[in-house]
Amino acid sequence: VKISKNIENLMMNLQILPGVGPKTAKRLALFLLGENKKDARKLSCSIDEALDSIKECQICGVLNDLEICSICSDPARDNSNLCVVETTSDLFAIEDTKEFNGKYFVLNGLLSPIDGIGPDELRINKLMEICNTRKVKEIVIALNSTLEGEATGYFLFENFKGMDIKVSKLAEGVPAGGDLDYVDNNTLKRAFSWRRVLSKD
Amino acid sequence: VKISKNIENLMMNLQILPGVGPKTAKRLALFLLGENKKDARKLSCSIDEALDSIKECQICGVLNDLEICSICSDPARDNSNLCVVETTSDLFAIEDTKEFNGKYFVLNGLLSPIDGIGPDELRINKLMEICNTRKVKEIVIALNSTLEGEATGYFLFENFKGMDIKVSKLAEGVPAGGDLDYVDNNTLKRAFSWRRVLSKD
Repeated sequence: VKISKNIENLMMNLQILPGVGPKTAKRLALFLLGENKKDARKLSCSIDEALDSIKECQICGVLNDLEICSICSDPARDNSNLCVVETTSDLFAIEDTKEFNGKYFVLNGLLSPIDGIGPDELRINKLMEICNTRKVKEIVIALNSTLEGEATGYFLFENFKGMDIKVSKLAEGVPAGGDLDYVDNNTLKRAFSWRRVLSKD
Repeated sequence: VKISKNIENLMMNLQILPGVGPKTAKRLALFLLGENKKDARKLSCSIDEALDSIKECQICGVLNDLEICSICSDPARDNSNLCVVETTSDLFAIEDTKEFNGKYFVLNGLLSPIDGIGPDELRINKLMEICNTRKVKEIVIALNSTLEGEATGYFLFENFKGMDIKVSKLAEGVPAGGDLDYVDNNTLKRAFSWRRVLSKD
């Protein structure tokens, strides 16, 4: 039964969200249109406002509402340390750890020749320029441990080979709280090869 | 770090959705603002359009965009059979089974004296009026099997006692595909008391 074209439209559009299928979309749509009309309006307004103001920082590429983001323009952060991430959400995740006080470079993608994503699309030139002007001493590669992530990381490593820059990479190993029994084979292999000697530290 | 007020605002407003906490909200927000700006705009538009057009059917109370919904105005549906549900989404669920060809009455709530929801809020007068004018022969009570659902069902049953209307109620028992081992005590008790004799059917 077609109850309403507009509700069905909403249900369809809710399914663009990751993890939302037809059933959840139906539930969400009726939730928004039932008891929660005010909240629903707030939600649509905040989507519009965010879309209208969102842009990539001209230096690091992070999604924000300024031409130069608050991290790039923060004088208290270490200019000589640069962390390369794939997405804005990876940057947030690292910021949440409070472990890193350098600056970031957000690729907004990974190398993928098959999709036509090469060094130009990832603004590798801009990255090189930043490294030169800021006299960056260390680049921390913080990319996903996937095929594309590894390939992009290796490409960056090769790129900085001739320069006087230390290139490091996030450690791979057993996740915190991880049970060795449940950790997959590859992770365990890497945890072995990345193992740290404790007795002489 | 405060990357953007508008993104944070969006993250907060996404958390009004059921089952969305801070982590999911962050993921959804960056999903909408990253690669999927067009879809995000479609989503906010369809929320607005649905909100602007949504109303309760003046007869049955279902959420839709017509004064009289397509079910109430459908001459092919059985006027003498009325199914009482709590929400529009319950109505959809029953429609999906294709088991019922009567009409509906959507309470848009359940009796809850503590929240000030009495018979007037549930438009019980309207329900009585419909039963009288349409010469309804059977009312199927299809409410949740919760305390409020049971109480509301019982109230309806009492209300129709004097009238020449058969009042029925959805069967309670073991769910399809349900494993007796995992079915809770109350469900099993009810499945016993609602059991059907097969040998003489």
